[in-house]
Amino acid sequence: MSTTDGFHVYDTTLRDGAQQEGLNLNVADKLSIARQLDDLGVGYIEGGWPGANPRDTEFFRRAAEELDLRHATLAAFGSTRRPGVAAADDPLVAALRDSGASVVTLVAKSHDRHVELALRTTLAENLAMVRDTVSHLCAEGQRVFLDAEHFFDGYRANPDYALDVLCTAAEAGAEVVALCDTNGGMLPDRVGDVVSEVLVATGARVGIHCHNDTGCAVANTLAAVDAGATHVQGTLNGYGERTGNADLVAVVANLELKLDRQVLPQGRLREATRIAHAVAEVTNVPPASRQPYVGVSAFAHKAGLHASAIKVDPFLYQHMDPALVGNDMRLLVSDMAGRASIELKGAELGFDLAGRPDGKELVGRITARVKELEARGYTFEAADASFELLLLEEVEGARPSYFSVESWRVITDSTPGDEALSEATIKLLAGGARIITTGEGNGPVNALDHALREAIGQAYPEVAKFELIDYKVRILDQGHGTDAITRVLIETTDGERSWVTVGVGHNVIEASWGALVDAVTYGLRRNGQQPA
Amino acid sequence: MSTTDGFHVYDTTLRDGAQQEGLNLNVADKLSIARQLDDLGVGYIEGGWPGANPRDTEFFRRAAEELDLRHATLAAFGSTRRPGVAAADDPLVAALRDSGASVVTLVAKSHDRHVELALRTTLAENLAMVRDTVSHLCAEGQRVFLDAEHFFDGYRANPDYALDVLCTAAEAGAEVVALCDTNGGMLPDRVGDVVSEVLVATGARVGIHCHNDTGCAVANTLAAVDAGATHVQGTLNGYGERTGNADLVAVVANLELKLDRQVLPQGRLREATRIAHAVAEVTNVPPASRQPYVGVSAFAHKAGLHASAIKVDPFLYQHMDPALVGNDMRLLVSDMAGRASIELKGAELGFDLAGRPDGKELVGRITARVKELEARGYTFEAADASFELLLLEEVEGARPSYFSVESWRVITDSTPGDEALSEATIKLLAGGARIITTGEGNGPVNALDHALREAIGQAYPEVAKFELIDYKVRILDQGHGTDAITRVLIETTDGERSWVTVGVGHNVIEASWGALVDAVTYGLRRNGQQPA
Repeated sequence: MSTTDGFHVYDTTLRDGAQQEGLNLNVADKLSIARQLDDLGVGYIEGGWPGANPRDTEFFRRAAEELDLRHATLAAFGSTRRPGVAAADDPLVAALRDSGASVVTLVAKSHDRHVELALRTTLAENLAMVRDTVSHLCAEGQRVFLDAEHFFDGYRANPDYALDVLCTAAEAGAEVVALCDTNGGMLPDRVGDVVSEVLVATGARVGIHCHNDTGCAVANTLAAVDAGATHVQGTLNGYGERTGNADLVAVVANLELKLDRQVLPQGRLREATRIAHAVAEVTNVPPASRQPYVGVSAFAHKAGLHASAIKVDPFLYQHMDPALVGNDMRLLVSDMAGRASIELKGAELGFDLAGRPDGKELVGRITARVKELEARGYTFEAADASFELLLLEEVEGARPSYFSVESWRVITDSTPGDEALSEATIKLLAGGARIITTGEGNGPVNALDHALREAIGQAYPEVAKFELIDYKVRILDQGHGTDAITRVLIETTDGERSWVTVGVGHNVIEASWGALVDAVTYGLRRNGQQPA
Repeated sequence: MSTTDGFHVYDTTLRDGAQQEGLNLNVADKLSIARQLDDLGVGYIEGGWPGANPRDTEFFRRAAEELDLRHATLAAFGSTRRPGVAAADDPLVAALRDSGASVVTLVAKSHDRHVELALRTTLAENLAMVRDTVSHLCAEGQRVFLDAEHFFDGYRANPDYALDVLCTAAEAGAEVVALCDTNGGMLPDRVGDVVSEVLVATGARVGIHCHNDTGCAVANTLAAVDAGATHVQGTLNGYGERTGNADLVAVVANLELKLDRQVLPQGRLREATRIAHAVAEVTNVPPASRQPYVGVSAFAHKAGLHASAIKVDPFLYQHMDPALVGNDMRLLVSDMAGRASIELKGAELGFDLAGRPDGKELVGRITARVKELEARGYTFEAADASFELLLLEEVEGARPSYFSVESWRVITDSTPGDEALSEATIKLLAGGARIITTGEGNGPVNALDHALREAIGQAYPEVAKFELIDYKVRILDQGHGTDAITRVLIETTDGERSWVTVGVGHNVIEASWGALVDAVTYGLRRNGQQPA
């Protein structure tokens, strides 16, 4: 059912979140996200608008058959009946009734101008639409929540009418009246004031639905809760139209960790980082590294100066224990790297450098290597995989070697009207054989990647599942065009997780080649291969 | 000098923003961003930490020579003197004094445990360090602001000591005491309360510096201003360590548009979208489409249902006029440009598009071209030179053409132990002759650039003075490695000024070629050449 002591954590990722530009969810995606949301422990999952959207009708049908929710209750979203039609005769209302969802969230207009211009009906008929639809669905045995659309703007323009809409819904049986900042222009103080006034005027249970147009969706939601709202709406990763909706994880983490208010079942918040990232895989929207609480950078520190103090007390440098949201502190190896940060970074990767008999000398050697490489343009902040290969080289005396390259060559050519094509030829030794391969690609690095994986695949077939998923190029030493150093970062996946490698060189292709070789080497080691 | 009625808008993109994971700025990048910040009208630009970082020392040296700031004052960031050393004898303090910046922002510890564990000195010595350093720099003629690091945590742990640090600084001559939520764990109510208490206890001018770890950096900053702070720190695009700093544009837009407080010079906020995007090109961090106010999705509507109501009154569906921040309402998924911004950009380049007899149709045609090209991956926010060529093509009926390319080819090869080398061959017609040239380079684009300029130089010798000074590559469609589209931005100089061109293609070399051709064409036109 609902969450701890009756507070509603209400997720609308599948409905309002899916309004985000470029975000398209099919029914299987929605079912998969619903399972993740249930795992997070939210009280309500708004699944979509059955009747208005065939995909959403199908979602509710399959959800009833396939979803076995432990924590969450499904809610169907829809609008009040059309003007001039009995609720029982409106096919869209019937679709809500027949959705199988035990909660229906009805959206209603509460801004007088929207009633007149968008609905094109009278203020009185709009109230009747709210009353009839809520009563009808309640009589059919469903719980009804009301989403008062454009409430804050409507309340500014015509407060009496906006309140009338809420009171009408509550009197007809709506359990919650959720105030929606549909256009997203609010700031926290005003939200708190309006929620307080609505509580006094209506006596209803008040919910809050915020968008992030002023960058304050999370703070607005908290201000509403502080003023007495006990139902918060939001989306995973803050997905939503325009600037997005309130990020539900940030809202919940602030309530639980900063305001000491348990709103998810105990222990569930620790799954937040994993779930936020898993949902990003489903939506195929790259997760924001700077996202509060769950971003990969959210607890990352450029160690340098502070590393020794971090060793003494990490809480001097973080606002909370990242484990509480399932995230981790990460130390970035930067050009301010010192011995302490190398030790910490090694520990993070599973190497107890300082604890070894030769620890002191070893850490000194690695620190010197990192400094020397960083001076040449390398960066290990993002390139954990290259850093791990460097550690292995120093710890074990040699970096893992699966193949030995004799030479490579790439040709790119173009005639006007045709797209340019690239072709790479590689000669290398692997698995005891000399191998020559040629790969084509829509770019030189793509061609090299194809040729390299084809060659190595003859000895290590698992490289077939590696895929290059991101490629970043940075020219260092701007202002010295021809002498410039190029740094390339490559992200590779094996379908389970991804890793980042770095390459540096005067030639962008050479830099890319270095990163590709590291990527394949790291991937083979990660997949348990022993160097030949 | 500073901004309207003495309120400080203080930008720290170049210092704290540059702490972001994966964000690396060289001196030219920093100078370019400083120009954009000045154009936005911020009062203060924190340029970096001279003395601690050779790149920052160099930045201040070059800034003094090359930057001609209209609105902003440069601030140098640095720490108080070391324990046990006179301020005048501390080389880091000397570097601040000698930086040429008229403002120095001194970071000081205000949390007792940080003094003991990180600084490893006594509470009394820390106060002396603050007093001495502020007095010394004031005596040397600089204005001093104090950044009280970890202030909110320190004030919770030991309020008397935290206030002592502020009072010591203010008495020694610091103009501003900025309260830093260094670990980023605060929520707005608490920030407002602390600012009020500090104002009462110290009487000093209070500033605010927030991080976004709770998703509330913007709201926290506003809460501080509401409580009486008159100095706000933030970064463009919210860049910064971990979850980032307060997004300065969102803070300013909320203050000006929601709270009716003019804090930038009149009219400057209208440049915010353009500037935020131009800076993202310099940092090579993809701009967040959902970013408040300036994101490409910030005023995007899935028109559908509401299209007719939007036509009657767009303000029913947006919280403000997007033109106030230089953004546009968008009703279609793919378009990124509006007529107004095309007109503005045209005017900026000296074309009075709207004033021509065929102005309306012309602007419509250019807008459509830009939309179509942007949908294919082009961007003109930073690539003014390519945009100007596009304008010329539409205004004059054809783009200036100095040469016609028959074909090109680049080969890059490597054997272990040798650096990779690239060789490009180009066949083209210029000045009535068919020319074939081969150029070498330490990279494929470098080789193409050499071959292209050698070929064209036979007809137009002035290309010899053109030099490619920056090259940026961005992979669009992240997550689709092989189908990705590549966008290249090239900056070229003729020794007097520089210009940026853009190229797009599936193949990075082809994209680079497009940008190179634009670069040479623009350069020849700028140098007064008539097309052959």
